[in-house]
Amino acid sequence: MYKINENYLKLQGSYLFSNIAKKVAAYKEANPEREVISLGIGDVTQPLCPAVIEALHKAVDEMAVAETFRGYAPDLGYEFLRSAIRKNDYQARGVELDLDEIFISDGAKSDSGNIGDIFGENNRIAVCDPVYPVYVDTNVMAGRTGEFLKESESWSNVIYMPCTKETNFAPELPKETPDIIYLCFPNNPTGSTITKAQLQEWVDYANKVGAVIIYDAAYEAYISEDDVPHTIYECDGAKTCAIELRSFSKNAGFTGTRLGFTVIPKELEANGTKLNALWARRQGTKFNGAPYIIQRAGEAVYSEAGKAQTKEQVAYYMNNAKTIIEGLKAAGYSVSGGVNAPYVWLQTPNGMTSWEFFDHLLTNANIVGTPGSGFGPSGEGYFRLTAFGTYENTLKAIERIKNL
Amino acid sequence: MYKINENYLKLQGSYLFSNIAKKVAAYKEANPEREVISLGIGDVTQPLCPAVIEALHKAVDEMAVAETFRGYAPDLGYEFLRSAIRKNDYQARGVELDLDEIFISDGAKSDSGNIGDIFGENNRIAVCDPVYPVYVDTNVMAGRTGEFLKESESWSNVIYMPCTKETNFAPELPKETPDIIYLCFPNNPTGSTITKAQLQEWVDYANKVGAVIIYDAAYEAYISEDDVPHTIYECDGAKTCAIELRSFSKNAGFTGTRLGFTVIPKELEANGTKLNALWARRQGTKFNGAPYIIQRAGEAVYSEAGKAQTKEQVAYYMNNAKTIIEGLKAAGYSVSGGVNAPYVWLQTPNGMTSWEFFDHLLTNANIVGTPGSGFGPSGEGYFRLTAFGTYENTLKAIERIKNL
Repeated sequence: MYKINENYLKLQGSYLFSNIAKKVAAYKEANPEREVISLGIGDVTQPLCPAVIEALHKAVDEMAVAETFRGYAPDLGYEFLRSAIRKNDYQARGVELDLDEIFISDGAKSDSGNIGDIFGENNRIAVCDPVYPVYVDTNVMAGRTGEFLKESESWSNVIYMPCTKETNFAPELPKETPDIIYLCFPNNPTGSTITKAQLQEWVDYANKVGAVIIYDAAYEAYISEDDVPHTIYECDGAKTCAIELRSFSKNAGFTGTRLGFTVIPKELEANGTKLNALWARRQGTKFNGAPYIIQRAGEAVYSEAGKAQTKEQVAYYMNNAKTIIEGLKAAGYSVSGGVNAPYVWLQTPNGMTSWEFFDHLLTNANIVGTPGSGFGPSGEGYFRLTAFGTYENTLKAIERIKNL
Repeated sequence: MYKINENYLKLQGSYLFSNIAKKVAAYKEANPEREVISLGIGDVTQPLCPAVIEALHKAVDEMAVAETFRGYAPDLGYEFLRSAIRKNDYQARGVELDLDEIFISDGAKSDSGNIGDIFGENNRIAVCDPVYPVYVDTNVMAGRTGEFLKESESWSNVIYMPCTKETNFAPELPKETPDIIYLCFPNNPTGSTITKAQLQEWVDYANKVGAVIIYDAAYEAYISEDDVPHTIYECDGAKTCAIELRSFSKNAGFTGTRLGFTVIPKELEANGTKLNALWARRQGTKFNGAPYIIQRAGEAVYSEAGKAQTKEQVAYYMNNAKTIIEGLKAAGYSVSGGVNAPYVWLQTPNGMTSWEFFDHLLTNANIVGTPGSGFGPSGEGYFRLTAFGTYENTLKAIERIKNL
């Protein structure tokens, strides 16, 4: 008789955002007359920019004619896209990469989940707490997390690095030594980030203890302050200890268009085995590339027009973030984030738990946010609002919160 | 120090088609004046049909406007596509499915690789020999295949089911009991298939021994004979033992457009755990859906115009298959396949090995095919040609082979 992957049975509840979706659907069905505004899931609302739309149409036309039709893509992705990435995201920041250190994918969620494939089961992971749930859940599936401890709502074999008001929402170097360290800056969910000097400490630490850093830079486009690193490879020695994940979802609105990439420098080796080669084999065997037309759309993000237009979108969302922060502060909330990231992190009032505040906000203001505790035990007592709504809805939502 | 997945180090060589690509590139560089025709990798050459192109343009326009812009897709894929699949691929064949038994993906290669995630390491797999390399390689990565035995070019813990001239290119029920059985009909690489009565025997066997069948039906559109099943669920009892993988790559030319789906009936349970729920969790956690515009393209394949146009494409390729078969037979080759599949399988002449014949064909006729031994030990002495070229090139290639 075939055996299932028993690790799946350890998973707690279902994926956070599925749970929220169910709660919201139930509320809407019971209260069809209410206008519910979502500042919950990190999904964008602005349409794809004109430069991207134009590139998509052009690529679609190419697919209609035998002479320009494209079948299977190169394993790593088209060179036109990898070149644009290298030039704009790395060379422009003083980072040199080989083209075959960049792997195009269908998004950072897939990559952050699949990257675990190239590591053994016997690695101990360290995560920020609160954390994007995919890092932990995919490691549960791989059998790396030990047992779930109900009292502490945590996994016995995971090193949690609390990011709370007390740590200024940044992780401290862990007391126990991890093998794989997940870092996401600018951070989802807290919206905070760390300086280049702070990230350098992590790189030095990882090189010292022999850990690998999975660096999720999906929110890089939202950085507004000068001393915040745009890529981990700005730090000395990062190429021997770090994998970087990037996404087109948030800088160019590709949440439903699906495109991302992973950088694995060839210097990154474990006992002589290059992780770059392992990932190339993983992707070559289990993945067949992002669609040609989507890769052309990604290329257009780096055109002059595309850069200007996506910058405008980011500014639009960051104006929402400012609106949220100022409104919440005026209403007496304690808030952080929202300066280098599209997420605002607030402390729940009156000692409410995160889920109590979720219900409170949904019922009394018809606003959907994300309970901090859904991101990990240290997220309890916090709540996430995203800047990805329309300006009109964001304004309306903040007014409702003020009037609570 | 972090540990890599040591199973990767057991993988033999690189992926078959990467090897071929390297050999061909080297030949072309050394012989720039020669016109090399590829009947090798199973990539299509005909452009996307007009109905699909129209749907793509329309969906791109929707993405340009806030009111019709789409962000994250539903976890399982859009209902419009799952409904079209259910109606056309299943209800039309007398098979009833729930919509949440269909999972949209970026293609059958990803699904056939990723499906292993939901199974434990301690399963023994059975594969046809020769076989699509992804089934075996992904199980090597997962640690299920034991050690590679150089003498027999096979894995110690894999059950091989030879499909040779002696078995009429169909697998026989294995002597040892497998946990997971990979079947692909119409078959890649042999181009052969089995009747509904034969497939029923496999379903009965799997239900009897408690095995699960991963049924890859990527070439379903090429079926021309009446007694060949279009879906495994035409067989009684298949819902309690079979997962079906489907692709848009070969019926609609989506190799570079990326779309597929997996069917997991809710009746499929292991000790009370539904595999449907495990896969839903896997995809919800590690995948973020196929692009909206690509899902609309998939829907268009099922429109009246789309069905007529893709049927024409399949007929075009099958005319190539006929050309190859008749030409090779006239040239004295022993051939099979090509009737219900776009692949023609030939015996190499004069006792040549598969790779010897590859080199012979590349050097003397400038034709690229695929060595049978690349698909497994029982593929030695065989060679695959695909019908996916243009008619003109196919004709030219066959003339060259005749003149060898």
